[in-house]
Amino acid sequence: MQINNAVTRLFNIRHPIIQAGMVWAAGWKLAAAVSNCGGLGLIGAGSMKPELLREHIQKCRAATDRPFGVNIPLLRGDAEELVSTAIAEQVKILFTSAGNPVKYMQRIKDGGAVAVHVVSSVRQAEKAESAGCDAVVGEGVEAGGHNGADETTTLCLIPLIADAVKLPVIAAGGIADGRQIAAAFCLGAQGVQIGTRFAATEESSAHERYKRLIAEMGDGGTVLAFRKIGLVRMLKNDFAGRALAAEAEGWNTARLQDLLGRKREMLGIFEGNLREGEMEAGQSSGLVRDVAPVREVFARLMKEFDACCLDLQIAARTAFIVDSPEPQS
Amino acid sequence: MQINNAVTRLFNIRHPIIQAGMVWAAGWKLAAAVSNCGGLGLIGAGSMKPELLREHIQKCRAATDRPFGVNIPLLRGDAEELVSTAIAEQVKILFTSAGNPVKYMQRIKDGGAVAVHVVSSVRQAEKAESAGCDAVVGEGVEAGGHNGADETTTLCLIPLIADAVKLPVIAAGGIADGRQIAAAFCLGAQGVQIGTRFAATEESSAHERYKRLIAEMGDGGTVLAFRKIGLVRMLKNDFAGRALAAEAEGWNTARLQDLLGRKREMLGIFEGNLREGEMEAGQSSGLVRDVAPVREVFARLMKEFDACCLDLQIAARTAFIVDSPEPQS
Repeated sequence: MQINNAVTRLFNIRHPIIQAGMVWAAGWKLAAAVSNCGGLGLIGAGSMKPELLREHIQKCRAATDRPFGVNIPLLRGDAEELVSTAIAEQVKILFTSAGNPVKYMQRIKDGGAVAVHVVSSVRQAEKAESAGCDAVVGEGVEAGGHNGADETTTLCLIPLIADAVKLPVIAAGGIADGRQIAAAFCLGAQGVQIGTRFAATEESSAHERYKRLIAEMGDGGTVLAFRKIGLVRMLKNDFAGRALAAEAEGWNTARLQDLLGRKREMLGIFEGNLREGEMEAGQSSGLVRDVAPVREVFARLMKEFDACCLDLQIAARTAFIVDSPEPQS
Repeated sequence: MQINNAVTRLFNIRHPIIQAGMVWAAGWKLAAAVSNCGGLGLIGAGSMKPELLREHIQKCRAATDRPFGVNIPLLRGDAEELVSTAIAEQVKILFTSAGNPVKYMQRIKDGGAVAVHVVSSVRQAEKAESAGCDAVVGEGVEAGGHNGADETTTLCLIPLIADAVKLPVIAAGGIADGRQIAAAFCLGAQGVQIGTRFAATEESSAHERYKRLIAEMGDGGTVLAFRKIGLVRMLKNDFAGRALAAEAEGWNTARLQDLLGRKREMLGIFEGNLREGEMEAGQSSGLVRDVAPVREVFARLMKEFDACCLDLQIAARTAFIVDSPEPQS
């Protein structure tokens, strides 16, 4: 089997499915499992100190000889150290998010690594391209965790970015099944990044209660909160309800910061505190109905994608005609 | 050419492209133009009194001998009268939105008309199905105008609804080009409803300034406002900015109602007041780059769709393999 689209070639992987480097869920075990299926696993450095990141990189390398990467949120105070750690450990694929990648680009390129940046607007995609990135992830507001202020959805964001940049575009936000992967390809993406579906796998390092909550949620199971201090999508729970109520009352940033406190994501995702935790997850949680092994999830994604491509061929042949429409007189 | 998917058969149309019945933009001229291209034009009764609706129906019938329909927002105090008017005028396709269709179903069916309801959640889709609707429009939060409180996006909503109901599903919200139509088909839709793109056509009855504003907006050009009194998506302008500021300050419903006032949509869409009007439009405005005749828009949609189906076939053949993934030992 040839590796033959821009995304599979860039990462030297078999399938253009990338597992998002989520805080508290994406350790070496998840990343290695995804890479072993022929996708691209990412270690989520956002919840790791440099020393722990080094350990995860080393364990991941022991668990797979296929390519994997690291995701580094640039809002971290020690982002530079995390980048240096990944480069020192010979990681060849770096995803950056939540910030401007330009100041890290030289170091990434000097380390011989591929640079990918996560964006939520056309302007950010253009900046990533001119900064020297090799690909961009266009992340719609469906995504769990931090979101762009524009709240542009994946359906609108991907064609806009595909029209604006020459770089390969990877679609993220709201994708949990193969129908949506096919949809992302239609929109102009050449790969997808999937978070929530992989957060609810056996290999995810998240707490069992968090995983089960994702599987149990139907549509409408997430909310966007904290617009004033940094927009976040999370599962509905007591804490999320209090956050929305505070916003409706017009609380200022200081009070909201106080309500949010520190390490809420750890409390929710890693410790499984269903009432008080910030359960970051995407709208695709509505489509996640079980906690399954990565291998099973991966097989489903591909089967659903293949079925969908066939359906679309049939739809194309039967529903549309190729000649231009003729107005009746 | 055979009519051969559930949506084209239901409406007896050639192409499963439905033009949304938008307030102030969707009069007889737009509806007839879309129907004459082989899609389904809808007259938007939301901005019409019964007498004016009757006039538009009669003019539409004189301008096309192909099927067309009427969209009736059920939040209108005189919704019953609008339904009766459409039935009395022998309209055979009724779309309802913003309310519960069950109390109108008998009258619609007695009139020999097809009933379609616009929904924004799985539960609403299930209710529409059990009420006796013939199809549902699943409308994601990308859409212009009124939106569901869950804020579920089209990418997530359509597969969820397609899994939940047996009815044909029509995708709406965020769709302005053929790539997105193909994506909607992948997600499980059998047709699409398009608003904003058709609002910015020559045949639309909206004001020229409103149409040009849609064409000029890039990504991030819309906001969601008025969560407390009825969520609405509109283009950014002075009024939208004041609405967001009021919400950030925690204004109560009475003050927000006062700020909104009455007939803001008319002021914006029909009268073209760029500062003070409520310019209802969807996120797909970022993808609308001109004001064009319906015939031209329609031809582009089909050309883009066809190209996209071909691309996806290529992607399917080259990027994925059909056998299941093999973890490396």
